[in-house]
Amino acid sequence: MDEFTPTSRTTIKRIPERGTYDRQFVYQVLDEGLVCHIGFAVEGQAYVIPTTYGRVGDKLYIHGSPGSRLIRSLQGDINICVTVTLLDGLVLARSAFHHSMNYRSVVIIGRAYVVEGTEGKQEALQAISEHIVPGRWQHTRKPNSSELNQTLALCLPLAEVSAKTRTGAPVDDEADYDFPVWAGEIPLRLVADPPIDDPRLLPGMKVPDCAKNYTRSPQNKSKQ
Amino acid sequence: MDEFTPTSRTTIKRIPERGTYDRQFVYQVLDEGLVCHIGFAVEGQAYVIPTTYGRVGDKLYIHGSPGSRLIRSLQGDINICVTVTLLDGLVLARSAFHHSMNYRSVVIIGRAYVVEGTEGKQEALQAISEHIVPGRWQHTRKPNSSELNQTLALCLPLAEVSAKTRTGAPVDDEADYDFPVWAGEIPLRLVADPPIDDPRLLPGMKVPDCAKNYTRSPQNKSKQ
Repeated sequence: MDEFTPTSRTTIKRIPERGTYDRQFVYQVLDEGLVCHIGFAVEGQAYVIPTTYGRVGDKLYIHGSPGSRLIRSLQGDINICVTVTLLDGLVLARSAFHHSMNYRSVVIIGRAYVVEGTEGKQEALQAISEHIVPGRWQHTRKPNSSELNQTLALCLPLAEVSAKTRTGAPVDDEADYDFPVWAGEIPLRLVADPPIDDPRLLPGMKVPDCAKNYTRSPQNKSKQ
Repeated sequence: MDEFTPTSRTTIKRIPERGTYDRQFVYQVLDEGLVCHIGFAVEGQAYVIPTTYGRVGDKLYIHGSPGSRLIRSLQGDINICVTVTLLDGLVLARSAFHHSMNYRSVVIIGRAYVVEGTEGKQEALQAISEHIVPGRWQHTRKPNSSELNQTLALCLPLAEVSAKTRTGAPVDDEADYDFPVWAGEIPLRLVADPPIDDPRLLPGMKVPDCAKNYTRSPQNKSKQ
């Protein structure tokens, strides 16, 4: 299956030509992103909480403390919405009206379930860790049973999914192309500055490859 | 008033020492951010949609097409949640468990109202434009009445607001400071690459100051 099947909740209605259900596109956006925004409703009030995540195939993993409102709410009998947005640039048109942004975003709707069992939980936590800093997990002190008990991992299946994107130059009204102002795009991207050593570093501990020249460039991140 | 008053919906319960209600801090996060994630619930289902915004004093402005689901929903009799998240770095601890992120985030809860009248609408649109690219508005072809009719501006008062932040080095369990692995922070920031000219640029149109060396550095952005 190369595309997710649109449902009534994920059909792109607004500017549908910017919508896509392409599976590889969705994977690339999720794999490049670091933060998702999770929406859930409690008695009609929506809450939107930022958190990190990981992806393995068609599973999106999130984690947190069993005591947090987010995690407690997500375990309930409710559908949630997880959105990942990558901002690629600002689009400066000639008219104020046609100013825009270049972006890629993914919206996932569904019900998260608790990942059961120590092995499953470790797998989920490793997936999140590898998503954020590939290669880091193997060098860390792994979670002990107390830490595992303090952590809940949830899985949201990638089933009801849509994506949107805008790329390229501004699109002005034909009459405005004579309007005498600069127009174009300001590209934006997330960059890493040189790593900062922990003040209590043991002697001889060098910055590892996984932290050196850290990048979220999509070509390195796409998988499956 | 230097602080927002916490309510049952905005009281930080999870790691409360990371929470703040400081008004200047909230303003700085909102003024540096470019994208907010708006959550709203329709029949118990939360949706989270990314969009841009602007701030004037204690008013957050958003805009969109009157036909979009987002804008139609927000006009309803519902409370919404608007979240802005700035990712400042990845925190690599010695233990997998204490890995974290440095970030600043703001959560606003409330009811948005439609900005009425041409003047009010223009003010809102200008605020959004100036928020994204300060100095751009004056050079653009301003919205005509047809464009104004195709745009709805909404205002969300900054009343129920909370913020969270994490900064600095990892915090490991005392026993782990002997664990022989590098630890520290990978700082992250959003940067602008050189502007790209529109392919249909008129001759002699130079990149304006507002697009040259574009930055979201907080020291330039804070106001009021």
